[in-house]
Amino acid sequence: MVQWTPVPVEISCYPRGFRAAGITCGLKQSGRPDLALIVSDTLAQSAAMFTQNRFSAAPVTVSRRHGQAGARAIIASSGSANACTGERGERDALAMCEATARAIGAAANEVFVCSTGVIGVPLPVEKLEWGIPRAAEALSPTGWEDAAEAIRTTDAFRKMAGGHWSVGDRDVRLIGMAKGAGMIHPNMATMFAFLATDARVEPALLKTVLQSAVRDSFNSISVDGDTSTNDTVILLANGQAGNAPIAPATEACEQLEAAVGQVCGELARMMVRDGEGATKLVTLKIRGARSDDEARQAARTVANSILVKMAFLGEDANWGRIVAALGNAGVEVRPAACSVGFDGIHVLDRGQLVAADQGNLAALLKKPEFTVALDLGTGGSGQAAFWTCDISDEYVRFNAHYRT
Amino acid sequence: MVQWTPVPVEISCYPRGFRAAGITCGLKQSGRPDLALIVSDTLAQSAAMFTQNRFSAAPVTVSRRHGQAGARAIIASSGSANACTGERGERDALAMCEATARAIGAAANEVFVCSTGVIGVPLPVEKLEWGIPRAAEALSPTGWEDAAEAIRTTDAFRKMAGGHWSVGDRDVRLIGMAKGAGMIHPNMATMFAFLATDARVEPALLKTVLQSAVRDSFNSISVDGDTSTNDTVILLANGQAGNAPIAPATEACEQLEAAVGQVCGELARMMVRDGEGATKLVTLKIRGARSDDEARQAARTVANSILVKMAFLGEDANWGRIVAALGNAGVEVRPAACSVGFDGIHVLDRGQLVAADQGNLAALLKKPEFTVALDLGTGGSGQAAFWTCDISDEYVRFNAHYRT
Repeated sequence: MVQWTPVPVEISCYPRGFRAAGITCGLKQSGRPDLALIVSDTLAQSAAMFTQNRFSAAPVTVSRRHGQAGARAIIASSGSANACTGERGERDALAMCEATARAIGAAANEVFVCSTGVIGVPLPVEKLEWGIPRAAEALSPTGWEDAAEAIRTTDAFRKMAGGHWSVGDRDVRLIGMAKGAGMIHPNMATMFAFLATDARVEPALLKTVLQSAVRDSFNSISVDGDTSTNDTVILLANGQAGNAPIAPATEACEQLEAAVGQVCGELARMMVRDGEGATKLVTLKIRGARSDDEARQAARTVANSILVKMAFLGEDANWGRIVAALGNAGVEVRPAACSVGFDGIHVLDRGQLVAADQGNLAALLKKPEFTVALDLGTGGSGQAAFWTCDISDEYVRFNAHYRT
Repeated sequence: MVQWTPVPVEISCYPRGFRAAGITCGLKQSGRPDLALIVSDTLAQSAAMFTQNRFSAAPVTVSRRHGQAGARAIIASSGSANACTGERGERDALAMCEATARAIGAAANEVFVCSTGVIGVPLPVEKLEWGIPRAAEALSPTGWEDAAEAIRTTDAFRKMAGGHWSVGDRDVRLIGMAKGAGMIHPNMATMFAFLATDARVEPALLKTVLQSAVRDSFNSISVDGDTSTNDTVILLANGQAGNAPIAPATEACEQLEAAVGQVCGELARMMVRDGEGATKLVTLKIRGARSDDEARQAARTVANSILVKMAFLGEDANWGRIVAALGNAGVEVRPAACSVGFDGIHVLDRGQLVAADQGNLAALLKKPEFTVALDLGTGGSGQAAFWTCDISDEYVRFNAHYRT
């Protein structure tokens, strides 16, 4: 039985032995906070996942090499993505790690570096080298909200989730923060998620826990279908809770998986809800696929369909567009055995049209959040959950018109 | 040397031995023409290509079986797609073929049937059985514009292209018509293209000529990235020009390929220009890919990126979004050797930023049509051309709001 208590993010989920800060160092023209620092007082284990984009940004290239023997910190700046900036970009990203290492007394390769913002513009390194020691001075065990604030770019709201649970007689804590709301704004890009726990975890386990959580959360959402050059997810675990090390295939491992999965899931759904003007959060539940992978692929194709998103915006139970997208997913589907339902109201049942109550259906589609269930009809046990949103007029204005 | 004269569609490209008609039989509530008929007086060779969507509509299922031993006619209705209509759908599609066969004196399996419109609604067969004999009565050697008019759904304009050329001492003619402007309108779907030539062509050749033309035209455009349940392209060749049969790997074959390729290309670009409110027609020219297939895949990913489309709408030379999309295409790309140019103005040259004149760039992006050239930097000889458009506010209104 997995016990895990998600809580409003407050002191009971701030992990021991971590400090965080968010300050303004002048990267954003708006003068809003733009530099976040998360530090573990002791060397923490880490797992990190990065964008699959071939044009990965300089901080991604540098961070991929770091944290191999443990990590002490994450330094994240917003305002410039430091992407498509060539060799200078790598030098600048490394300079951020070195400045952080000096400020906290660590090695540069124990620091993860992340940047988000405009592509193709060099980092203003002098501002960062001024700001990083000041961020280190501002570090506090309760500085998480400041850090989460400083990684925002076009996000309409700050994104945090956390909780705590017991491992043996020890209270274990987990906090997560994220930024991202579409591939975003004129030239803005990127999603980040940073998680920190004081759990002690066997070395090999952390990566598999993170991979599975990311698959079912950040890799199971669609805002606009684009992947940025800078996407980064990092999980730090410093063991300061003092629990017996969590080993694979134990109840404690299941709890850790549930906790990391839930925090990632909550953060991912916050991104979709944000969605640069999105008005709907739609959960896609796929079943009857030949495999979970095929279910996810079907979900992704439906979730990314522009016409399906338009139908959600129009509050239209347009299952024709949904099955048309499904038919293009490149996975096994049996049209004569397919079912489609909106929050339990079936419109297609094993290939047969259902005379659904149009009034109920119309009322349902007006809700800000609902579920679309799709059975692919293969008889297989493959399933997936996926979250998507509409493309609103505001999204179009935001991404096209408001840039000169 | 390939000689081919594209002309304004008029009598000089109406192929001999074909007649066409377009009439109103009451499928569209608007009372606009909704039934098109194209007939060859003699048995014509045919090549046909259909949607890859797993939910292919009943007329597609029926048409796939027809024309195997030659074709006499294409009957096309607009107003209902006859898709997701089960066994009744197939009976109805076959009934359309039978009514056409009776009216023109042919066999039902010599008739291709196509329908476009709302998904999941049965065809009003009685209206069609009333209308088909009337369409046959209206057939005329100059009825092409009427037929092209009758296959329109949300198209802002009628789409026709044609021309003529010489094979030996014979004048050979080709005409094409199409419908499609996005996967389209509330529940409307589909692209059709119907081509007719009086060329005499060796049996095996017609299919390969059509496949290559479709790959480089209808399969190389993006409006919204969705594929309908009903997409159909048909090429009829009745040999009435009296030329010596066109054989593979001859100059006459090259001319045929050029003619079919150009008509398909023109029709495809008309669809993108239409694009349900699109304001830009953007040609993507890819080179430096490992293969033509990889070039097309790269082009398709960039062309379908919502954020790239938004940048075009915003008249923003946002190459960061373009390379970010390129990096997600799943093909070999060498970022350090990539180049990006807008109508010859380089913004990225073999991985290096170019200080392009922003005034020139801004002026260029205001044009209704321009080219984006992308070199993937692999040193390979793979290349492709692709056409895309923006997503406009009008598209959003059209696809989301104006349906109750």
